[in-house]
Amino acid sequence: MFPQSASPEVHPPVRLDPIGYVITDYTEPRSTPPQASEASEKPGRVVLYEQYADGLTGLKGVPYIWLLTWLHAQPEEQTTDMLVVSRSLEGTGQRTGVFATRSPHRHNRIGLSMVRVENITGNVIAFYGVDLVTGTPVLDIKPWVRGIDAPP
Amino acid sequence: MFPQSASPEVHPPVRLDPIGYVITDYTEPRSTPPQASEASEKPGRVVLYEQYADGLTGLKGVPYIWLLTWLHAQPEEQTTDMLVVSRSLEGTGQRTGVFATRSPHRHNRIGLSMVRVENITGNVIAFYGVDLVTGTPVLDIKPWVRGIDAPP
Repeated sequence: MFPQSASPEVHPPVRLDPIGYVITDYTEPRSTPPQASEASEKPGRVVLYEQYADGLTGLKGVPYIWLLTWLHAQPEEQTTDMLVVSRSLEGTGQRTGVFATRSPHRHNRIGLSMVRVENITGNVIAFYGVDLVTGTPVLDIKPWVRGIDAPP
Repeated sequence: MFPQSASPEVHPPVRLDPIGYVITDYTEPRSTPPQASEASEKPGRVVLYEQYADGLTGLKGVPYIWLLTWLHAQPEEQTTDMLVVSRSLEGTGQRTGVFATRSPHRHNRIGLSMVRVENITGNVIAFYGVDLVTGTPVLDIKPWVRGIDAPP
């Protein structure tokens, strides 16, 4: 029933070019809120590089968007452990598989932040909900869609 | 109020190593459901490369997860336009900014699929909800969390 065929060869690395970056009031990870939802009134901006600005066409009126980001401020040496202590469990020292957590100490440091759009002007998105250090590169932006992004 | 300082230099490309791949019944994009939610009873598997298997510790009991994938089957020449025709608007020919759509024809072809976990055995996750071609590389797995991933 679950498909069985396999393609076990290891896929080569992929290369992504950031499309822009965020501007926030935070300069280092430890003092940055761990989740956008925990800082939903904190403002930030996305600045797209000019060549991608047309990609924002039609985004006005979309209340929430995903920011897929490259968590560049996370030290690379903290991205190799498969078991991590998430911030919510720091007091206990308990370690969990990294893919069961939202810890930024992950092999591929992609951040996934749902933020609320305030307005869009040219290549700049003003948003609320900040869990990112200023200067964090943005890899992709997607609209948040209820029928796709939340269970029925 | 919205922070103004900037770091306008272009960030260099980032390199990601896939952590595994999916196995599904679909072999080419055109016949693959556009969203996992539209094929919520279709089964698929994630196979992690062995060195990442411990990262699944603690994921049992998490009902929904995000698969962040590399949409390798999308032709690269379809990733440069900032205005795209999304599948839902194909009949009209209307073009929208790519960041206002979930189109796979995007600059950084990262897929974001919310899927339902059926079970986890070693380095394999059996799941329901398929919008991916078989063999699609997986970049990251995160738990879906209501307080983070859906608006209040």
